[in-house]
Amino acid sequence: MPRDYTVGIDIGGTFIKAGLCDDQLAVVAREAVDTVADRGPEDAFQRIAAQIDALVRAAGVDRAAVRAIGVGVPGPLSHARGVILNAPNLPGWSGAPIRDRLSALAKLPVIVENDAKAAAFGEFTQGAGGGMRDMVMLTLGTGVGGGIVLGGKLWRGSFDNAGEIGHTIVEPGGRPCPCGQNGCLERYASASAVALRTIEAIGAGETSSLQGLAGQGRTIDAADVQQAAREGDALASRIWDETCRYLAVVCVNLQHMLNPQLIVLGGGLIQAGSHLLEPVRRHFDTYTWSMAPDSPRIELATLGGDAGILGAAALARGL
Amino acid sequence: MPRDYTVGIDIGGTFIKAGLCDDQLAVVAREAVDTVADRGPEDAFQRIAAQIDALVRAAGVDRAAVRAIGVGVPGPLSHARGVILNAPNLPGWSGAPIRDRLSALAKLPVIVENDAKAAAFGEFTQGAGGGMRDMVMLTLGTGVGGGIVLGGKLWRGSFDNAGEIGHTIVEPGGRPCPCGQNGCLERYASASAVALRTIEAIGAGETSSLQGLAGQGRTIDAADVQQAAREGDALASRIWDETCRYLAVVCVNLQHMLNPQLIVLGGGLIQAGSHLLEPVRRHFDTYTWSMAPDSPRIELATLGGDAGILGAAALARGL
Repeated sequence: MPRDYTVGIDIGGTFIKAGLCDDQLAVVAREAVDTVADRGPEDAFQRIAAQIDALVRAAGVDRAAVRAIGVGVPGPLSHARGVILNAPNLPGWSGAPIRDRLSALAKLPVIVENDAKAAAFGEFTQGAGGGMRDMVMLTLGTGVGGGIVLGGKLWRGSFDNAGEIGHTIVEPGGRPCPCGQNGCLERYASASAVALRTIEAIGAGETSSLQGLAGQGRTIDAADVQQAAREGDALASRIWDETCRYLAVVCVNLQHMLNPQLIVLGGGLIQAGSHLLEPVRRHFDTYTWSMAPDSPRIELATLGGDAGILGAAALARGL
Repeated sequence: MPRDYTVGIDIGGTFIKAGLCDDQLAVVAREAVDTVADRGPEDAFQRIAAQIDALVRAAGVDRAAVRAIGVGVPGPLSHARGVILNAPNLPGWSGAPIRDRLSALAKLPVIVENDAKAAAFGEFTQGAGGGMRDMVMLTLGTGVGGGIVLGGKLWRGSFDNAGEIGHTIVEPGGRPCPCGQNGCLERYASASAVALRTIEAIGAGETSSLQGLAGQGRTIDAADVQQAAREGDALASRIWDETCRYLAVVCVNLQHMLNPQLIVLGGGLIQAGSHLLEPVRRHFDTYTWSMAPDSPRIELATLGGDAGILGAAALARGL
């Protein structure tokens, strides 16, 4: 019989996912609700507090046995103040006191973490990171997030924004990024960037089997590109391979900066499975040095959409 | 009156520098001897042991008050085994048991560290890193070395090779590096790369005020390029600016991966002073994102050639 529980919350632009986890980090109850981001943060905090009570009731758990709440949120944040600094997907949330308001409403300690870092910690404790000490995770979704675990602990850096690997520059002077930089990894290796680069190339007159989709008025997505690449479409193959090459370059850079045992790839793009993993590994082997046998393992995430709530619940255990 | 002492040794391809340091890490005696690398490691170990005794005598210190030895060596190494894995500048040293042999000869505990990491730790404890918690140092010399200090400790990584920032890829498919990669920072921002790129451009027919030097049979070095850039030479200005731009890109990448408070530039190239620092800072400000106020300070190293022995002596204190 578990002695106590923590709650993991994963706030995204579309859904708020919540999970009640026991002391072995097994999810005993879960729920997802619409974020309804345009109603603002206070409305969401109240619904999250109600969501926690609903999870406790659903699991038949004593409310007093719930120890703490971990919350993953998109965008740069102040870990010390428990505040999002800049949230493009959550209009009106910048500066909202997530930690303090949620703590007051739920009457529990709250830890707030960047969503990609929470997911990385989830994979570290419960997923692909089993038995490792040092791990880096890249989340390849709408954007490219990241999280770094060093010596078993999440590394936050001096300003709480360590692990923003999607904004490392892989192509100096390359594609412009809404973050203000040029040539960010995110512009090449996010699911949206894979789709956008393909759409742009077709718009510029390149031929592709995907032109049909565009003609039907359906938007091309990353899964279409990956599928077309598997079927031998030249444009899709080139863009998919370029994506894998940039990921391999960043894996080499992580190898030399941090020298981790393991790099985990997560997020929507890994639905491609070995069609992502194998070319990234192959390019990594081609690109990396021959000076020392210090290549990290490169693996796919194993927890899927649960990584965020599990990581947040695991971080809440540290409160 | 200091209670005890440590010795810091910095083994390079040309010189072995040794310093006897008190418990405040002040150098009380120092000596540099030729490495004579081609006589091999055992010969050097014996001379280092003699050098330590000479330092102790010169300083009038009780030999029993010397507590430990720290050694910085070039190239990837096994920290756990105290062995260099690959030393291009020290033929025959690969696999030599530095830690165990030197410990046996000097009858003292020995810690072996990569030279750039030792220098970074020296700057952290005694130099530009004063009061900081998280710092990254780049050493711009014959190659580009690096060292990462996180939470006050040198970060070694899972394979002891963290901080090899000179081998992060800044230009995918760029200039070939002897390490086996292409487009390494070292091929653009080491002192030798600055000189080589200029010599190649002149050889390819570009005009420059430096052609005169080449005509006199004198080899162009990085200081010549920097001087010519200050005097308005177009080729030298372009190459110097490119160097500073690649350094700025890596500073942005370090910002997003590790989020340190401080990035320190050291090594021979920083003799250019503000002519290096100002353009690197300017390009960094242009390249970095606008999502969060988390820019690291970028500063020059302050310890010069002493960083290596001070860092090694400081690491020896941790034994």
